[in-house]
Amino acid sequence: MSKVLIIGAGGVGRVVASKCADNPEVFTEIMLASRTLSKCEAIAREVGKGRIQTAQVNADNVAEVVALINRFKPGLVINVALPYQDLPIMDACLETGVNYLDTANYEPKEEAKFEYSWQWAYHDRFKEKGIMAVLGCGFDPGVTSIYTAYAAKHHFDEMHALDIVDCNAGDHGKAFATNFNPEINIREITQKGKYWENGKWVETEPHEIKKVLNYPEIGPRDSYLIFHEELESLVKNFPTLKRARFWMTFGQEYLTHLRVIQNIGMARIDPVKYKGVDVIPLEFLKYVLPDPGELGENYVGETSIGCRIKGIKDGQEKTYYVWNNCSHEKAYEETGTQAVSYTTGVPAMLGAMMVLTGKWNGKGVFNVEQFDPDPFMEKIGEYGLPWNEAVNVDLEL
Amino acid sequence: MSKVLIIGAGGVGRVVASKCADNPEVFTEIMLASRTLSKCEAIAREVGKGRIQTAQVNADNVAEVVALINRFKPGLVINVALPYQDLPIMDACLETGVNYLDTANYEPKEEAKFEYSWQWAYHDRFKEKGIMAVLGCGFDPGVTSIYTAYAAKHHFDEMHALDIVDCNAGDHGKAFATNFNPEINIREITQKGKYWENGKWVETEPHEIKKVLNYPEIGPRDSYLIFHEELESLVKNFPTLKRARFWMTFGQEYLTHLRVIQNIGMARIDPVKYKGVDVIPLEFLKYVLPDPGELGENYVGETSIGCRIKGIKDGQEKTYYVWNNCSHEKAYEETGTQAVSYTTGVPAMLGAMMVLTGKWNGKGVFNVEQFDPDPFMEKIGEYGLPWNEAVNVDLEL
Repeated sequence: MSKVLIIGAGGVGRVVASKCADNPEVFTEIMLASRTLSKCEAIAREVGKGRIQTAQVNADNVAEVVALINRFKPGLVINVALPYQDLPIMDACLETGVNYLDTANYEPKEEAKFEYSWQWAYHDRFKEKGIMAVLGCGFDPGVTSIYTAYAAKHHFDEMHALDIVDCNAGDHGKAFATNFNPEINIREITQKGKYWENGKWVETEPHEIKKVLNYPEIGPRDSYLIFHEELESLVKNFPTLKRARFWMTFGQEYLTHLRVIQNIGMARIDPVKYKGVDVIPLEFLKYVLPDPGELGENYVGETSIGCRIKGIKDGQEKTYYVWNNCSHEKAYEETGTQAVSYTTGVPAMLGAMMVLTGKWNGKGVFNVEQFDPDPFMEKIGEYGLPWNEAVNVDLEL
Repeated sequence: MSKVLIIGAGGVGRVVASKCADNPEVFTEIMLASRTLSKCEAIAREVGKGRIQTAQVNADNVAEVVALINRFKPGLVINVALPYQDLPIMDACLETGVNYLDTANYEPKEEAKFEYSWQWAYHDRFKEKGIMAVLGCGFDPGVTSIYTAYAAKHHFDEMHALDIVDCNAGDHGKAFATNFNPEINIREITQKGKYWENGKWVETEPHEIKKVLNYPEIGPRDSYLIFHEELESLVKNFPTLKRARFWMTFGQEYLTHLRVIQNIGMARIDPVKYKGVDVIPLEFLKYVLPDPGELGENYVGETSIGCRIKGIKDGQEKTYYVWNNCSHEKAYEETGTQAVSYTTGVPAMLGAMMVLTGKWNGKGVFNVEQFDPDPFMEKIGEYGLPWNEAVNVDLEL
């Protein structure tokens, strides 16, 4: 059907590349590009089934991305590089008239915002150009947003309360490691908490609100209210929501490590002079912490991510819980990465498939809950992330 | 009597400079030099009583130090720069025939050893040149070594067991900070423990051995067995010691911070590539942690450091405890630094006085316990570090 260009050769890039290579009927040609060519080559060799071409590209540089797009002529660019690179890659897509899909919102380097404003501002230009940008098509955001759209379509007349619950009950055997880019991860989880209630955002101190929630096949885990980017688009696209929150599990040791990292100044994102060189502490931390890409081999246990929703159906109060559990071991066996990368990469591949097969269409910039969830929900289990649902259970929230 | 050159303008350099300036009858001219001239100028202005000259010098560079010595022609160089710089400064003293005094043993950058071998190897050359080097004349090593010599001279026929106990019961109000150069401090306290017993060194895991010890005017504190450099020279110079140990107090929060700093790789002393630049994680930490020189203002509480000794006197078993308590507030009031710098700088000044007045003499390289302790013990109280003693008390050890 079409050629696809994947930019980014971390754990998620590996999963996307592997999954695209499994589906030649849609992805007729695949190009994997990143700053470090050798990473692309390793992925192509290890999980490419002989179907992946590679290229070197600096995704901060619009001209380089434009040149690569013009050379390869893809039908879609899947951006699984760093969030800082969303805008230059969108600029390159605009310039060349090619569709765009990513898994995480754009972040400026100098402040941690986790908001869509910069990317939503591209809507009119994408529309005029006659192309589409699909934002946030990983697991969360991504599948959680599609779960919510599916719930709205099939289970509720009116949704009132949404709680996205994200549990990683895996154990990688390291004293401390982050499951994806530590810089992005730590920026995300050390920020203030924020949730939507009665038409406005309520801010909390970091990790101020905690509940013990039970996760299927896992059991009770300390879960903390944090802000997560899909809340911003979901409350906009589902305006009946009176409350929307996001919960993530953290163990005590993990939080202790985070607290110390902040106390000692290593979570700072402003440059610090070291022998005449500007070093950004949080960015430097990435070079001493374990590489998330290498956690896979000894990672045991499961993730469990889902949506717990309350609302009204046929005049009755109703609760609905839809979730996926994903095994770190199985993810590693299939793609050589752990479940956190796997659960992000599989939806990106399927989202790309939705775009290239015309199941999702439109001109402009979209969040995934704006599309029909059904064709995605039909297929996502088959590609490795089966979902479960329960109706009128105690949501604990 | 003589001119003195002080190299190093951190907290200890500030105290040494201030104390030398108070004693013009011995220190007729004072030159304070460091890599950063502005630090020397600030000290001269704030505590120099109009008596301190300043100069810029890179103490890693023997030729620069030689040139400065030849220009200023001091009778003694007091080295309170970094431990890495002990050898180049000793080389410069050898070349120019000038006496040398320091407060901490030489450390190679690439490994944490805390041993005197490199400096002791200079003995013959200093002897031939007809000059002396006084090693470790701060508080510990320094005063603790002189306390031990004093005990040997006046209280024991034979010393059997020595426990040096170092308590900092101060509170600087920060989540985490080190009391002196974080790089040196963390290297010291994250290494394995080691103590002397029955003629050999016994190694322990870091912080493996803990006791609750009572400190005068402070009370009980968790105290951990660590290795400290003066043990090496003391067991050599007092060969009747069957056991020699060093104890330091740490709070739980402090140890948690240390543990995390190690877990996340920030205690590493090997270079890590960051954007093409070699960054040494532990060295970088210094630039994000609070500057120890700036802890003084809000530092409350006391330090208590002393020697607890068991042995034989006149055929009877005897115990002896000699110690100093030093107030962070009083130290700050007098010199603008906290007690950890104060207790290091005052003995360095007094040791320099001992050398320049001929009370301590010899040709070669010496640890301070090799000199007559009496003239030092007579004066140290007057200069701000009075000592207390107790005989035949329970040493708890």
